[in-house]
Amino acid sequence: MAIENSKKNVTFISGDKTYSMGNGHFYVIAGPCSIESEVQFLESARSVVANGACLLRGGIWKLRSSAQAFQGLGKAAFDIVQKVTSELHTGIVTEVTDPRQIESLYPMVSIFQVGSRNMHNYALLKELANQDKPVLLKRGLAAYIDEWLKAADYVETSGRAQVILCERGIRTFETATRNTLDLNAVAFLKKNSPYPVIVDPSHAIGIGELVPDISLAAAAVGADGLIVEVHPAPKEALSDGPQALTPTQFSQLMIKLEKVLNALDRKLQKK
Amino acid sequence: MAIENSKKNVTFISGDKTYSMGNGHFYVIAGPCSIESEVQFLESARSVVANGACLLRGGIWKLRSSAQAFQGLGKAAFDIVQKVTSELHTGIVTEVTDPRQIESLYPMVSIFQVGSRNMHNYALLKELANQDKPVLLKRGLAAYIDEWLKAADYVETSGRAQVILCERGIRTFETATRNTLDLNAVAFLKKNSPYPVIVDPSHAIGIGELVPDISLAAAAVGADGLIVEVHPAPKEALSDGPQALTPTQFSQLMIKLEKVLNALDRKLQKK
Amino acid sequence: MAIENSKKNVTFISGDKTYSMGNGHFYVIAGPCSIESEVQFLESARSVVANGACLLRGGIWKLRSSAQAFQGLGKAAFDIVQKVTSELHTGIVTEVTDPRQIESLYPMVSIFQVGSRNMHNYALLKELANQDKPVLLKRGLAAYIDEWLKAADYVETSGRAQVILCERGIRTFETATRNTLDLNAVAFLKKNSPYPVIVDPSHAIGIGELVPDISLAAAAVGADGLIVEVHPAPKEALSDGPQALTPTQFSQLMIKLEKVLNALDRKLQKK
Amino acid sequence: MAIENSKKNVTFISGDKTYSMGNGHFYVIAGPCSIESEVQFLESARSVVANGACLLRGGIWKLRSSAQAFQGLGKAAFDIVQKVTSELHTGIVTEVTDPRQIESLYPMVSIFQVGSRNMHNYALLKELANQDKPVLLKRGLAAYIDEWLKAADYVETSGRAQVILCERGIRTFETATRNTLDLNAVAFLKKNSPYPVIVDPSHAIGIGELVPDISLAAAAVGADGLIVEVHPAPKEALSDGPQALTPTQFSQLMIKLEKVLNALDRKLQKK
Repeated sequence: MAIENSKKNVTFISGDKTYSMGNGHFYVIAGPCSIESEVQFLESARSVVANGACLLRGGIWKLRSSAQAFQGLGKAAFDIVQKVTSELHTGIVTEVTDPRQIESLYPMVSIFQVGSRNMHNYALLKELANQDKPVLLKRGLAAYIDEWLKAADYVETSGRAQVILCERGIRTFETATRNTLDLNAVAFLKKNSPYPVIVDPSHAIGIGELVPDISLAAAAVGADGLIVEVHPAPKEALSDGPQALTPTQFSQLMIKLEKVLNALDRKLQKK
Repeated sequence: MAIENSKKNVTFISGDKTYSMGNGHFYVIAGPCSIESEVQFLESARSVVANGACLLRGGIWKLRSSAQAFQGLGKAAFDIVQKVTSELHTGIVTEVTDPRQIESLYPMVSIFQVGSRNMHNYALLKELANQDKPVLLKRGLAAYIDEWLKAADYVETSGRAQVILCERGIRTFETATRNTLDLNAVAFLKKNSPYPVIVDPSHAIGIGELVPDISLAAAAVGADGLIVEVHPAPKEALSDGPQALTPTQFSQLMIKLEKVLNALDRKLQKK
Repeated sequence: MAIENSKKNVTFISGDKTYSMGNGHFYVIAGPCSIESEVQFLESARSVVANGACLLRGGIWKLRSSAQAFQGLGKAAFDIVQKVTSELHTGIVTEVTDPRQIESLYPMVSIFQVGSRNMHNYALLKELANQDKPVLLKRGLAAYIDEWLKAADYVETSGRAQVILCERGIRTFETATRNTLDLNAVAFLKKNSPYPVIVDPSHAIGIGELVPDISLAAAAVGADGLIVEVHPAPKEALSDGPQALTPTQFSQLMIKLEKVLNALDRKLQKK
Repeated sequence: MAIENSKKNVTFISGDKTYSMGNGHFYVIAGPCSIESEVQFLESARSVVANGACLLRGGIWKLRSSAQAFQGLGKAAFDIVQKVTSELHTGIVTEVTDPRQIESLYPMVSIFQVGSRNMHNYALLKELANQDKPVLLKRGLAAYIDEWLKAADYVETSGRAQVILCERGIRTFETATRNTLDLNAVAFLKKNSPYPVIVDPSHAIGIGELVPDISLAAAAVGADGLIVEVHPAPKEALSDGPQALTPTQFSQLMIKLEKVLNALDRKLQKK
């Protein structure tokens, strides 16, 4: 198929290294749901970097269903991010929730994240098309694969920003898990789209102790990587604690991931 | 229930009249999906006003799944709106898709519309909370009723803007119709929330010839009104033609709506 | 459309009368979810017949998710049904859950009901095709309209049994109501299929106080009737109490239904 | 958790061997969707047995949405099954669609299969409870995990038949793939239920070339096995051809499965 011959590699810089997602290696992005404090972010970041994550995640502005829920530190997190990423020689992916945040986030981020709730926010996507850092585009809660690809088109129209797709679970009738991880979509997109596709197992299942199992499944199905939540003390997290891995769980997961990837002749891309 | 004692009436101005949605009367908002030209908008607007619509609808900036689809006239529509609304002594509800549009739209609109794809766009909702015109908040494609009410909270936090909820069909497994109209949600919200609730039958079913049937159902279930698409020549519409009513179909619908409402001791609020 | 010219009328006998569903009149079938005792069934039956229901409903064998839940009286209900229907000169529709029940139920029922959970039970449908009483075919929990029509084909293959479709809510992500009533499907089927279509508002919403609202919507959208649960003491019901109407609520509903139907030039077919 | 201490092993006999699903090994059941002829079944069966499948699958009575579709050979397949299973020294799992088939199928099958469309057919489940061969219980199209477990209860009430759960994809809004494989459910059930859980990747995705990818994911997530469709000439299959693997694809899949399982310290249980 023509598309397979034109698979896109997406280049991003994390600390002093340049990576190329889409080259067959498996990339793990990890960190807390939200940046809550310097201590919390540093601790989480250290543990995931020490175990091979090649990029940090951490929310600055959060999209929360309730106006009363913690909305992220906002600009107060900027200094924390600068300190931690420079200390650990790594970059960060964080969510952009408003077109007016792009300019201030640009110098700090390796990759911009567009959350599920904003996949259809075309005003935001159009604005991200006008800069040159990659965009990690999460699938909308109930977005058809086709709509998701069309949202990716919005980002790529100007030819500057590149897209990484992120499957994070869809909304179905089932309530035993937070969402329903759609690995069919990952398999489908790896064959029928040119984009790298990663998986967010944390939102996809919402239950920390089950995150490693579905992370291994994501590696086995052929995803290009993971973006996973790790918190030094999940029970005290200000957002999404129940789905976060502890540093120990994360470390064990990385060992198993590497074994599964190697069994399939793939490489876990470590920092 | 306490909520029932504190039902909210939402006041809006259309032309030289003030209306109060939530007072038990039934309000019909109508017009084309998109404003395509002065001729098209005027023709559609005239026909719906002549048949009793008390407010116009018409898209200026459109949220389209595809970047290649017609995106609305944007600011080029402003003059058209001014001419048509002043000629017909009526107001308009139009969709706001970016926080930066609020200021320029404010003088022109009676009600701001937030589309389904932006129900979770909390940056936009927070900004709308800081002005005083009502916000017609469409339900997200796969939003729980609970999330929808929480999105309404975002708009109402500052105490200035008021919310009208709009059920427009949810995304389910069924594909014979565009979406699945959820009248259960309307019945539920009328009992368990303080907001007026209207229905968008056009997006809910996506098939013009079936729009009147479900519009009557919306009136019978207790909705406060409709927002319905009417186009002088649906087959030539630049967006959503298959679901638009012709002026004749709209006129016939209004007659039946009035009969059903009267049978239930309610009044069709005409311009 | 050719189909509209060949709409089917389905004839059934209730007591000493013959009815023809599909003739434009609106038929209300009512009674308890399950037949629990002679006293309970008689009381429920009397109240619904007195208020114009033209056929009784009442479960003999129940399909319950849990093996520990009340499974219906089974054959012990036969005598109760005989007494009550002969005393009130009316018939009954009851659910058949096993092909081996058909023979014993045949003399007693006016219409066989196939529940949602058995819509895809083709062994049962094929067997029902070999008798001549109408089959009320409920839509499966997640059945496409197209699959539902194909299930109807199974019943009609032999040319003996006729089908009445019954929309009873589909399973979606929403959990505030028991199911999601799909009135789009009713509008769609009335235009695009030859079958009478009725609505089960009780299962569709699962909340007794909201059943009247959506029942009116079902009448307004063009359904051919309702099958609704009425229990003399809903709180004491052995199954589905929360969604049952009291006799008083039922009586008030019938008055409103007649008004809405008359407003649309239709007739409420009373016993 | 108490449940984990009481995991059930399900014993079945295939040919002259006894297997114990639930012991941590991975079991592959394979064969055609339907048994179409002796030649077709034998060819498919030979290839899967040669590559390590420990049990055959093959439909005798098929549940098809359309009454016009191929319904399976029915009793005419019995001789074929006898010949092929005795020649290859293996057993078969086949679907039972009517309680009246149990007696005649009993001597022939290693495991009874209950299809998705019959998961809620409690009359069938109750009957299967009264025999002692294992029951492979597929999840209903839109069954909550909780309902699925309750359906398993029906089968296990008498204490004779044992249950193997089979996830085969649920019905969601997405249409790019036939169903949406829910590996969250597999991870959830492995932690929170006592039953072995296998995956049917063929129905779950419906696209043959993607079946191997999700089969590997199923192994990685912790499933106890697969039931997968293999056809000597998928394009000529009388049912479900597009989702069948060729014998060559199956053979390649088995090699990869073994590598992934070994990487996770598990064993592929070969015949």
